[in-house]
Amino acid sequence: MAEVIYPKMAVIGCGLIGSSVIHAARAASVVGQVAVADASPEHRERIKAIGFADVVTADIAEAVKDADLIVFAVPVLAMGEAARAAAPAVKPGATVTDVGSVKAAVAEALVAALPDTVYIVPGHPIAGTEYSGPDAGFAALFQKRWTILTPLPREDDPYLEAVQRLADFWTALGANVERMDDKHHDLVLAVTSHLPHLIAYNIVGTAADLEEVTQAEVMKYSAGGFRDFTRIAASDPTMWRDIFVANKDAVLEILGRFTEDLQALSRAIRWGEADKLYELFTRTREIRRGVIAAGQESAEPNFGRDRAKS
Amino acid sequence: MAEVIYPKMAVIGCGLIGSSVIHAARAASVVGQVAVADASPEHRERIKAIGFADVVTADIAEAVKDADLIVFAVPVLAMGEAARAAAPAVKPGATVTDVGSVKAAVAEALVAALPDTVYIVPGHPIAGTEYSGPDAGFAALFQKRWTILTPLPREDDPYLEAVQRLADFWTALGANVERMDDKHHDLVLAVTSHLPHLIAYNIVGTAADLEEVTQAEVMKYSAGGFRDFTRIAASDPTMWRDIFVANKDAVLEILGRFTEDLQALSRAIRWGEADKLYELFTRTREIRRGVIAAGQESAEPNFGRDRAKS
Repeated sequence: MAEVIYPKMAVIGCGLIGSSVIHAARAASVVGQVAVADASPEHRERIKAIGFADVVTADIAEAVKDADLIVFAVPVLAMGEAARAAAPAVKPGATVTDVGSVKAAVAEALVAALPDTVYIVPGHPIAGTEYSGPDAGFAALFQKRWTILTPLPREDDPYLEAVQRLADFWTALGANVERMDDKHHDLVLAVTSHLPHLIAYNIVGTAADLEEVTQAEVMKYSAGGFRDFTRIAASDPTMWRDIFVANKDAVLEILGRFTEDLQALSRAIRWGEADKLYELFTRTREIRRGVIAAGQESAEPNFGRDRAKS
Repeated sequence: MAEVIYPKMAVIGCGLIGSSVIHAARAASVVGQVAVADASPEHRERIKAIGFADVVTADIAEAVKDADLIVFAVPVLAMGEAARAAAPAVKPGATVTDVGSVKAAVAEALVAALPDTVYIVPGHPIAGTEYSGPDAGFAALFQKRWTILTPLPREDDPYLEAVQRLADFWTALGANVERMDDKHHDLVLAVTSHLPHLIAYNIVGTAADLEEVTQAEVMKYSAGGFRDFTRIAASDPTMWRDIFVANKDAVLEILGRFTEDLQALSRAIRWGEADKLYELFTRTREIRRGVIAAGQESAEPNFGRDRAKS
């Protein structure tokens, strides 16, 4: 039996990640009481039905009262407002974290909103699915995935202890924990997550708008590659809108690189430069092997999605 | 027990698709003898070890001798040369097909190389994995996937019968069969397969070339979306090089649309036009639902790749 790390945890926003944090923390027995605040009446109904929270409320101040750990799990542009609602009720000495996909903007919003009696440790579990809402969560979501913590530039012992306690919490949930500068996080994630989503949304949009090829054809013949992109492009629209607004600079920088490379590739196709194509297509295979070797991906063909058929 | 449709089948090129055709045709009992020609000594060793072919040779003419069905399963730019090697030995009345991802260029190459005593019916099964070679094949690969046939503009009865027989063959292998004009095929596939591969190869290449973010970081934090692209970018480099050269016009047209849309999206991010982003991100969800409803995709979160964990 694991030790309780936080006697009371408050989760603000109970979507895919918020609900998975609750499932995983319950499964690991590292929290005592769990309070959840969610603005959506439908979500609150579902949270009650799932039955994994002791308190379910629309009132953020009520949820964070007496909490030892407060987890903000709302879209990144909503973090500031949620933190302002929590501020009058937070317990001095509480640890405050979040699960947002952008870190510098969120750190700024949390610091501006909250009293300096709490320990703010922004965080980001690199995990998810294309589904949203409280019913989408599951305890194993963070297993073997990385959670990045981006501590504030503070070196006092109580703060460092709070960071370590939060790292222990995530480790208990099955995650590998890494600490990183928040601006570097935002650049790394622009590459490994934000640009892939942008590209996926874009290609699915392009395909939907063609006149010569029908949407029915796009769907029928999607097994040639397109269907993989539709998964990512089915992710939560509010969450992703906020990410692109909040991480604008890093996203535009990486997008600029991508576009340059794509133009070079386009030119190679136009001029039939087969060797250039072959060179790139060979090099990219290595990266796949690295991702699998890093334990971040299934080696099964087609992600194992054909398993049921064979 | 199904009826034998082709007493002798010759498969030229035994990679993922060639070997899957043999497995599936054997499983469905629709072929008698199977002859395989493959240029690679390593492949021929593996084909003998798998033991699913009666004849294994490097000599295309030897393989196609007496064959009732000849399946060219080599990269699309190699089709012409393979057909020229087969030409002197093909049996009059044989059906000749292929599995290439580009149809107009391949039809032209086959017609130019082969005598008009054979029935040329170009084809394309929309199925695959990121793995290559004779060991990558499996019998269920074509189940519920679409195979597109692009018959030549011929209306004579023997030809139409040959087309129907080939459609029956693919149906027996578990595929849904559709007939289409070859130029339209090439445009549809440019959208649903060729552009997705180009984009995936490009983004993986961009990520590998960054200075500020290390390759180790790209691999570690790939679960945020990037890893999905690495699967596609691990596909066979020769096959894909040929596709982009052979389907240049359609690929460049669709790529032009994609790039325009991406520039508009980039501009929306730069100017913080959150509503435009939200609108696109909502619209793309519908396409995902359509792909799942069309039976071309798993509805499981993350393609079910986390199934083992939960």
